[in-house]
Amino acid sequence: MIITVNSKDRTELIDITSRVQDKVRSASGGSGLCMLYVPHTTAAITINESADPSVKDDILMVLNQIVPWEAGYRHLEGNSPAHVKATIVGSSELIAIEHDRLVLGTWQGIFFCEFDGPRTRKVHIKIMSSLADA
Amino acid sequence: MIITVNSKDRTELIDITSRVQDKVRSASGGSGLCMLYVPHTTAAITINESADPSVKDDILMVLNQIVPWEAGYRHLEGNSPAHVKATIVGSSELIAIEHDRLVLGTWQGIFFCEFDGPRTRKVHIKIMSSLADA
Amino acid sequence: MIITVNSKDRTELIDITSRVQDKVRSASGGSGLCMLYVPHTTAAITINESADPSVKDDILMVLNQIVPWEAGYRHLEGNSPAHVKATIVGSSELIAIEHDRLVLGTWQGIFFCEFDGPRTRKVHIKIMSSLADA
Repeated sequence: MIITVNSKDRTELIDITSRVQDKVRSASGGSGLCMLYVPHTTAAITINESADPSVKDDILMVLNQIVPWEAGYRHLEGNSPAHVKATIVGSSELIAIEHDRLVLGTWQGIFFCEFDGPRTRKVHIKIMSSLADA
Repeated sequence: MIITVNSKDRTELIDITSRVQDKVRSASGGSGLCMLYVPHTTAAITINESADPSVKDDILMVLNQIVPWEAGYRHLEGNSPAHVKATIVGSSELIAIEHDRLVLGTWQGIFFCEFDGPRTRKVHIKIMSSLADA
Repeated sequence: MIITVNSKDRTELIDITSRVQDKVRSASGGSGLCMLYVPHTTAAITINESADPSVKDDILMVLNQIVPWEAGYRHLEGNSPAHVKATIVGSSELIAIEHDRLVLGTWQGIFFCEFDGPRTRKVHIKIMSSLADA
């Protein structure tokens, strides 16, 4: 299953929690694992607080500080900072599924991380059903 | 399955390897994958050296240097640095299981990462049994 | 299944995509998940652009800038920066498998990250077959 995400800024965290939950419910996998995977090299996926939108702004601010925009990069396309952020945050997340629902903590949401936008992006969703719950 | 962790400091790495191993053994899943998942947004989980306790102190020291305590954060709760560290380190780890044992490297241990303590925290353990080992 | 990697530099990103793909094909798991796991505490694994080799150089350059070589580390072995980088990048990656092939994005490759070389290293490959594709 695939979710399409349209980013609007150069760097942006986009809450996709409800869209992932809808896909998981429609797949009716019962219980198991949900893998979210970003097939891009200048984007990533993370789980963090979704209640206060300021949190994603703060995460982005610090990532943009840590990884310098200019640093004598060798990659000529000009988007090396985006590649570095992708490696720091990571290209996949794993979430347990029970009774067709994602098992997220109270404050947790799922965020697509755009580091080289704006672009049209994809998130792959792969569900592995459990033989038995453990 | 759930492990409860009580942190004592504001930021702290806590070795939970033997507690996870005990849960895996009691579940008797044979072979498969063990997912460890932190349902919090100001904590994380990592795998690193457990032989010398100085290693976890050094990891924490650098994370606390990289992510500034004060940076004009917008999130008013005052714990934005903890949220950023959670995204950098990540909310889950995956470890193979063979014959009811975690397949860890010689020096590897599993650490719960507290970034906004002290608190009482949880780590979810989900075991996916293999159809066949590959 | 295990891949052996020989690093030549102190810090180095090594493209192992085709070697992982060969193992996945030979295992004939059909569809499912491929977990790549590094059993070391001073190395990691990441997915990023493999088309332009400059990208891996840029990632390495920034990681080496972010994590200082000298910082009053307590771990006496002298390789604390490598341990920190291992926690930032992470010890495992997950990739979907369909019809015996890794489902990677167009520009994605799999990189073993050496942070304390040169050494002989291992990458574990674990395949979980799907009951059914979702």
